[in-house]
Amino acid sequence: MDFEAEMKKKAEAARAASRKLSVLPTGVKNKALLAMAEALEKRSSVILAANEQDLEEARQKGLKRSYLDRLMLNESRISQMAEGLRQTAQLPDPISQGDYSATRPNGLEIRRIRVPLGVIGIIYEARPNVTADAAGLCLKSGNAVILRGGSEAIRSNTAISSLLAKAAYENGIPEGALQFVEFTDRAAVDVMTHLSGLLDVIIPRGGAGLIKHIVANSSVPVIETGTGVCHTFVDASADQAMAVDIAVNAKTSHPSVCNAMETLLVHKAIAAEFLPRLAAAMAEKHVELRGCEQACAICPAMIPATEEDWSAEYGDLILSVKVVEDIQAAISHINRYNTGHSEAIVTTDIRNAHRFQREVDAAAVYVNASTRFTDGFEFGFGAEIGISTQKLHARGPMGLMELTSTKYLIYGEGQVRG
Amino acid sequence: MDFEAEMKKKAEAARAASRKLSVLPTGVKNKALLAMAEALEKRSSVILAANEQDLEEARQKGLKRSYLDRLMLNESRISQMAEGLRQTAQLPDPISQGDYSATRPNGLEIRRIRVPLGVIGIIYEARPNVTADAAGLCLKSGNAVILRGGSEAIRSNTAISSLLAKAAYENGIPEGALQFVEFTDRAAVDVMTHLSGLLDVIIPRGGAGLIKHIVANSSVPVIETGTGVCHTFVDASADQAMAVDIAVNAKTSHPSVCNAMETLLVHKAIAAEFLPRLAAAMAEKHVELRGCEQACAICPAMIPATEEDWSAEYGDLILSVKVVEDIQAAISHINRYNTGHSEAIVTTDIRNAHRFQREVDAAAVYVNASTRFTDGFEFGFGAEIGISTQKLHARGPMGLMELTSTKYLIYGEGQVRG
Repeated sequence: MDFEAEMKKKAEAARAASRKLSVLPTGVKNKALLAMAEALEKRSSVILAANEQDLEEARQKGLKRSYLDRLMLNESRISQMAEGLRQTAQLPDPISQGDYSATRPNGLEIRRIRVPLGVIGIIYEARPNVTADAAGLCLKSGNAVILRGGSEAIRSNTAISSLLAKAAYENGIPEGALQFVEFTDRAAVDVMTHLSGLLDVIIPRGGAGLIKHIVANSSVPVIETGTGVCHTFVDASADQAMAVDIAVNAKTSHPSVCNAMETLLVHKAIAAEFLPRLAAAMAEKHVELRGCEQACAICPAMIPATEEDWSAEYGDLILSVKVVEDIQAAISHINRYNTGHSEAIVTTDIRNAHRFQREVDAAAVYVNASTRFTDGFEFGFGAEIGISTQKLHARGPMGLMELTSTKYLIYGEGQVRG
Repeated sequence: MDFEAEMKKKAEAARAASRKLSVLPTGVKNKALLAMAEALEKRSSVILAANEQDLEEARQKGLKRSYLDRLMLNESRISQMAEGLRQTAQLPDPISQGDYSATRPNGLEIRRIRVPLGVIGIIYEARPNVTADAAGLCLKSGNAVILRGGSEAIRSNTAISSLLAKAAYENGIPEGALQFVEFTDRAAVDVMTHLSGLLDVIIPRGGAGLIKHIVANSSVPVIETGTGVCHTFVDASADQAMAVDIAVNAKTSHPSVCNAMETLLVHKAIAAEFLPRLAAAMAEKHVELRGCEQACAICPAMIPATEEDWSAEYGDLILSVKVVEDIQAAISHINRYNTGHSEAIVTTDIRNAHRFQREVDAAAVYVNASTRFTDGFEFGFGAEIGISTQKLHARGPMGLMELTSTKYLIYGEGQVRG
């Protein structure tokens, strides 16, 4: 295949650029980010024209409304992209920050500093704003980046990335640091995930199918992101009004995102009182409820849930509901069916709160709050490249720090090992 | 295959045990580690008898002396294993240590704590001491572990792991936390590297062939360890006597380990003076020198190096030698041929020292010291499970902290997202 050689060339150029980028002063990186933001706004007409073509093709293919909405750009969304780049410029530069230092008995002075990962591959779907967000975060953290967006947004992504790369290179970013893959062929993903030695990590952002495929097949290390089968457990001692508010927010404020709730568990002691309240509130928001046998007995309007429902990431106004014996059963259910993303307990019992946080295995475990808060901005990191659901390297929202590695610097005066 | 089901059963048992292990108090873990140490010493005769059978088989196969030495156990080596477990008991427990905390404007209280990775797979070769070392470090950091040693040490490893598991379970470690794979079939490695969802990480320890195979094929995340093509660059301004000492130590103090030097680079301005001194010192230690054209011109006794020499990890008393134009050429050579392990410069020029440390891409970059110091004990971590040569998750010597992940705990009072 022609694009195999082409991809390798891109990766080699990115690798060469990453060496220069890794030692670039913060001021240069920030100036480039501001210029990139300006380029997007000044040349928005170019982006919008490209986006209109993508939209037209998507409409012709009959893609559904929610999909078209993710794909669609307008002046305000372009301004948001630009604003994101400006915010990234303002964040502290993680590179060269020290995080360990020791003087050994033999006089060796050891310190560990933050360095870029090197070359990061981002494989993503529909949303064209990822192009700008990911490019900004990778450059700020001193990494070269290879972006591979979905075929549906190819014209929008190409327009955005060309503008960004031009502005970056004109402002001191080494040429090759920002690469965009124009090949819409799915095979390009497989080529990219086998560029071991040229790429340091691949971060997939998209649907469960894409992520699963990449995790199973990549020989480049992968950070798994963004699949979320999130639960809320309403304990016997819960403030029930609070529990309804939290559940409605976790389910309905943005159902398509990964930190939305998919399953609600309720303690059997309060199920008969709580579930009708929950059902009424969810009905107002047009949420379909799928209940276990006990839940359906209490609220006959619920659809009986099947085994598949407990591991479903609906991404939609659907909620599965299960009555559990006790907190132990709730924790077991969650640790069996969750994806390690975000889980919540609503309780007034401090012992149960503590136990839930200790024993539930997930990136973020909440007491009395909505799972919707799992997000780099909400956590105070100022930005986010994705939410890791794996345990290696990074877990939970990944900001600039998670795009770095470390290096030991050792100073001696001729020491040799005995 | 029968062992496929068996492996899955082991992994599921380890996963279940890991849930209990993750919340076990430090005191229980430490007590178990001390009991494990005692079991090894008290029952050393069982281990030695098993080891003698392994050695006998290896002798019959005609395996070479250095190999037999790695395989061989005696009372003193068993005491060292026990001592390692006792030292691990004394190390601080990383679990539940906090490393980030914030109160957000909406009142949410966020903190991040250290948690175990979960289930760790260790795939290793010859040295039976890895069985005890790895088991101790994994248990102390709250992880369940599945050990898969090489077929040559199968009887020794089985004896050691049985004693360890018995002592552990009798002292409060949940059953299933310490698993040993008795299948010597190579296919067991491939089964193990595809237990996604049951294993959280695989750490291979062994030859380059084993590691390469696992990195290329595993669908479980891997931490790449221990391949070391390490360089020492002798700058024009170097203290030449110091440079000879460092080079001799880096090459000859333990040639088979990954932090030993494989290539020496020397600035052309001092090559004619320095190389004969180096050659004389290396001759005393019986080191074979393979030189570039310029090096051979200065020291005609050197064997001409081929392209393969620059990327060879000899693990033996062989050193490749290259004369370089300047520090820029030295850095380029290293970044092209190294494995990201350990690199050193010998110099009295502070600007070159700084530049070398900034621009060389490796886990550990030394000024005026031997690369042999890259080691968890020498760096002050008290223990080491391996030396990571990748950038993701951990880089350089990995101690207990590198066997952990994180978890966000969030406390609210009913907060929902706007």
